[in-house]
Amino acid sequence: MNIGLDMMGGDYTPREAVKGVQLYLSENPSAALLFLFGDETQLNELLNEYSISSPHVKVVHAPQVIGMHEHPTKALKEKQQSSIAVGFHLLASGKTDAFISAGNTGAMMVGALFSIKTIEGVQRPTIATIIPKENGKTGMLLDVGLNADCKPENLNQFATLGSLYAQNILGINNPRVGLLNIGEEEGKGNILAQAAYPLLRENKAISFIGNIEGRDVFLDKADVMVCEGFTGNVILKLAESVYDITKQKGIHHEYFDRFNFENYGGTPVLGVAKPVIIGHGISQAKAFKNMILVAQKMIETSLLGKMKSAFKV
Amino acid sequence: MNIGLDMMGGDYTPREAVKGVQLYLSENPSAALLFLFGDETQLNELLNEYSISSPHVKVVHAPQVIGMHEHPTKALKEKQQSSIAVGFHLLASGKTDAFISAGNTGAMMVGALFSIKTIEGVQRPTIATIIPKENGKTGMLLDVGLNADCKPENLNQFATLGSLYAQNILGINNPRVGLLNIGEEEGKGNILAQAAYPLLRENKAISFIGNIEGRDVFLDKADVMVCEGFTGNVILKLAESVYDITKQKGIHHEYFDRFNFENYGGTPVLGVAKPVIIGHGISQAKAFKNMILVAQKMIETSLLGKMKSAFKV
Repeated sequence: MNIGLDMMGGDYTPREAVKGVQLYLSENPSAALLFLFGDETQLNELLNEYSISSPHVKVVHAPQVIGMHEHPTKALKEKQQSSIAVGFHLLASGKTDAFISAGNTGAMMVGALFSIKTIEGVQRPTIATIIPKENGKTGMLLDVGLNADCKPENLNQFATLGSLYAQNILGINNPRVGLLNIGEEEGKGNILAQAAYPLLRENKAISFIGNIEGRDVFLDKADVMVCEGFTGNVILKLAESVYDITKQKGIHHEYFDRFNFENYGGTPVLGVAKPVIIGHGISQAKAFKNMILVAQKMIETSLLGKMKSAFKV
Repeated sequence: MNIGLDMMGGDYTPREAVKGVQLYLSENPSAALLFLFGDETQLNELLNEYSISSPHVKVVHAPQVIGMHEHPTKALKEKQQSSIAVGFHLLASGKTDAFISAGNTGAMMVGALFSIKTIEGVQRPTIATIIPKENGKTGMLLDVGLNADCKPENLNQFATLGSLYAQNILGINNPRVGLLNIGEEEGKGNILAQAAYPLLRENKAISFIGNIEGRDVFLDKADVMVCEGFTGNVILKLAESVYDITKQKGIHHEYFDRFNFENYGGTPVLGVAKPVIIGHGISQAKAFKNMILVAQKMIETSLLGKMKSAFKV
């Protein structure tokens, strides 16, 4: 199993990425071969500093870096030797089985959509976030920003993709799918939600439990919560801000601690043909380790194969 | 100044409504004449029990009650003697200057839209919620559920209505209006937000500061935050659930205490020609008192007159 990791993208790289690799290897000594993309000299020095001389690590020289605020398409095109471009190149050519980066989100999205094909039958790939439930369980919400405008069938496909992810990666048996809406009964909501409801109800690949409301997002009502990417993105950023506000105000509670994104290891891009994980720009060692673990699990459980089967006509 | 109050609608009425009236009168001895709608015998007994014999209180017999789960249009039509129907009747005929109820929300909406005319020029009335900012200030978000699907001009009108409310009722000078969106720059977002942006920018009646994101909702970035009612309703219910979760988990902090809806006294229906305030079903004395205070302020500041002027061509 070969996992590619962008060592340069993000605010605290390459050091924190190296520390994440160290953490991962210390806990999973022979799991995967890690391909580390970045400046060879810089990376070798850091690997040396952290005493990483494992045969499970392979540095791939990528002298360019795509900055956090560069234009995604332009940067990817012009910086063929960047860690993100090289990472996608190896993923597309089959040298690696997954690719992880905490770098420029736009460039990661463009790379995922254009270097890696969409799963046949999937109309629109999607990005998901983990939602900590107040009773200690974990759910997921999708789409969280890739698709600001959706058609009903998009939401239906997000439900299928999310269910497979929840089952295989989060370990939730028969995940309950809820349609995020502004009322409980069928027929409530905006035009999109009203039209998506019957599609979800007829979808044999999921366990649809009906509408859920804003008040149910953090409650253990549905495991997979689907919505268009506008509302999902607003919720994601709002939840992150609640975490920031509690930290800043010195409000400590284990429930809010679970909002720390580092625990979940990045946002998977679902619906593309290979595992791609996008990390938060402020990812540190723990987040990098967890992203590697998620990628490993996506490969081990053959998640992509299962997704491909689900969309086979 | 005559303010109408439904004493029967809500989970803790009529007792908590009477206690709210008592609280209001004790703090504002000669402000308004309150018209109390409900069962005369029951109300007189309670007024007696709470020693309310003020000349500022007038009981109007309304023997019927519209239950919380009754069909709004049907109930309003069939129960002409209900406290909500009587309340709207007196408001429409000019006997009262405002109407407040914590009863069936749907019936209140139907009553507001059909008994009371929309302000000329306003395409769609809207409902707003108060948002406690993390720095102690107060903002507002609208629409929060009345308009699940919106046109760009609807959002633009919500901005005008919200600005006038923020200025006159919340006391915010020159309120900053933000368009809730999923990116900071113009051109970001879904089709609706992209189309609303230039309208807001050109709106002379408001101070538009551009897009805000989910992370800015609780920060002091914009005073008036506009969005369609789907996203707004999800945020409102999600914020309420965060308050419930903190209470249930015993997390006490003055910031979360400010999420207690009782402090704000209900949701005004903006864009209709007279002051209508809808309370939370679980409203208790403090919420009733605050709703009366908001109604009083809406009358004192001639808010409705200012709104009518703003939409005059």
